[in-house]
Amino acid sequence: MIPTEKAPAVFGRARDLVGPAMRTAVGRLSAEMRPVAEYHFGWTDADGRPVGGNGGKGVRPALAILSAEAVGADAVIGVPGGVAVELVHNFSLIHDDVIDGDAERRHRPTVWARYGIGQAVIVGDALLALAQQILLDPARVLELDRVAECDAARRAASRIADSTASMIAGQALDMAFETLPTVDVAGCLAMEGGKTGALLGCAAAIGAELAGAPAEVVASLDRFGFELGLAFQAADDLLGIWGDPARTGKPAWSDLRSHKKTLPVAAALATGGADAAELAELLAVPCLSDGQVARAAELVEQAGGREISTAEARRRLDAALAALDSPHLAAGPRAELTEVARFVIEREF
Amino acid sequence: MIPTEKAPAVFGRARDLVGPAMRTAVGRLSAEMRPVAEYHFGWTDADGRPVGGNGGKGVRPALAILSAEAVGADAVIGVPGGVAVELVHNFSLIHDDVIDGDAERRHRPTVWARYGIGQAVIVGDALLALAQQILLDPARVLELDRVAECDAARRAASRIADSTASMIAGQALDMAFETLPTVDVAGCLAMEGGKTGALLGCAAAIGAELAGAPAEVVASLDRFGFELGLAFQAADDLLGIWGDPARTGKPAWSDLRSHKKTLPVAAALATGGADAAELAELLAVPCLSDGQVARAAELVEQAGGREISTAEARRRLDAALAALDSPHLAAGPRAELTEVARFVIEREF
Repeated sequence: MIPTEKAPAVFGRARDLVGPAMRTAVGRLSAEMRPVAEYHFGWTDADGRPVGGNGGKGVRPALAILSAEAVGADAVIGVPGGVAVELVHNFSLIHDDVIDGDAERRHRPTVWARYGIGQAVIVGDALLALAQQILLDPARVLELDRVAECDAARRAASRIADSTASMIAGQALDMAFETLPTVDVAGCLAMEGGKTGALLGCAAAIGAELAGAPAEVVASLDRFGFELGLAFQAADDLLGIWGDPARTGKPAWSDLRSHKKTLPVAAALATGGADAAELAELLAVPCLSDGQVARAAELVEQAGGREISTAEARRRLDAALAALDSPHLAAGPRAELTEVARFVIEREF
Repeated sequence: MIPTEKAPAVFGRARDLVGPAMRTAVGRLSAEMRPVAEYHFGWTDADGRPVGGNGGKGVRPALAILSAEAVGADAVIGVPGGVAVELVHNFSLIHDDVIDGDAERRHRPTVWARYGIGQAVIVGDALLALAQQILLDPARVLELDRVAECDAARRAASRIADSTASMIAGQALDMAFETLPTVDVAGCLAMEGGKTGALLGCAAAIGAELAGAPAEVVASLDRFGFELGLAFQAADDLLGIWGDPARTGKPAWSDLRSHKKTLPVAAALATGGADAAELAELLAVPCLSDGQVARAAELVEQAGGREISTAEARRRLDAALAALDSPHLAAGPRAELTEVARFVIEREF
């Protein structure tokens, strides 16, 4: 959770604009599914009682709002985009928890752990369908009176369908990696680009798309979000191994314990030296002792996996910021996009 | 499977037009998911070897094609609609099998039974996203050169998102019914309208929508498909109890064994007499003996559940055919829609 006093101002603005629309959207779900969704979003506890949680960081809604503002449109034009992207993101969280068998998220039981696999499947499906309804008919679904021009809405819906498809393909690749002994760096980046980059790219572009901005401007904003996603993922992969357990809420070297083939590991294995060979041998052991996990972390670092991933995170952040270097973007929102990007990445280090 | 020599000619025409487009669409899935989808569609066996299966009856693609032709458009305009509806239908089959724990479909292991729950979840998701991509950008995804005008494509995508949302809500209602002691007839029809009616309505309307037909013409075609769906479901519910095991491939009184609260049962329970009371008592028994199941079937019939459901099926079929009574529909395709409706329902009796 972001400590609000340090977060860029746009997070609060996005919460004020997109938050109520999210409630309206989720209110469209049938009586059977609504309580499950409200629990997932952290709006209620497991007994259905309202709680203060706001369900996640709100990076995607903030990007969607800035995306509209960056091309000179009113923030409200980006609202259906912010809601739709947030719904798709949460559809993927609910389904991924089923797929990965993860029983906890944000220190609470995941949807499948609390309500069963069937509920997690159907409520995830419902969020995905709802996201499309919102982009294709925002006036009816969100009761908004200021919405995008028709063809812009179609292009926005098409963009979110494409990024959803990429995200799903990334998750399928991640699942396939589990049974492979090694994964190369290119494969790892393709997976992370799909899983994280595609939807962040969509979030950063969808407000501009809804505002009817020219294709090349929308494309630069998408590039910004995509590169930011890869920067975030590289930083997150570093945290997954060397993150402070007190901050991450996970045991030290967590990703190595669960044999995740993240970027630092892929990069270390790709060096092909003695360290890589010893690391590969260790990773073939089904259940690692604390000593073995510590040794694996040491080997990833010695082989250069930590350094390569750190460099990758910085390079991707630079690429994201470079994508904003366009005369077609308004200076204020552009500065705020930069601020969001630095904030998202820096809190990872 | 429909014995092809008896099927209306439009099934063959739809197979020729929509079949190749389905292969193109599924070919867009990533290498990890494609084999799973091809297995589900019956194009390959569990080892990935091509087999002759054509994966289902093709009612929905046939309706989509006729829907375009009924408003005077070329059948090819309906193709993206036929593909999208068929993809959404199959997304729901794959996920419903996970939710219901059904290990067999069309005499083969279901996707989750063959590939695991995670694969069933992700491949179902991928089919849903693909359906939207196809409607929103058919030229790119299906490589078609004759596609609907832009706003018609948006309305078609909106229509399929709405019917998908209704279908999901119907499935959620069905899941909720499992833990209820009784279900009333209105609840049962609401559930079946969502689960079966909504997407058949969409199939029957989407070709006309893509062809840019006036809203009231599209609405009548949707009504036709929706009522046909309810007629089909009532007939299917009768088969689920009194169907010939040799034809249905399921044991006698199958739905009563699994305590399904289908229309004949809901109608029988609603009569409130002595038969209904004895039936309710029997249905509260967790595991019924053969004798008890036979008695339950007898009670449903005595209380009038069989007669009510038969009348419902006929009334819904009449309502479907009445919806076609419009001067805006071309005579030939209208006759073929009638033929498809009678064929779909009559093979159920």
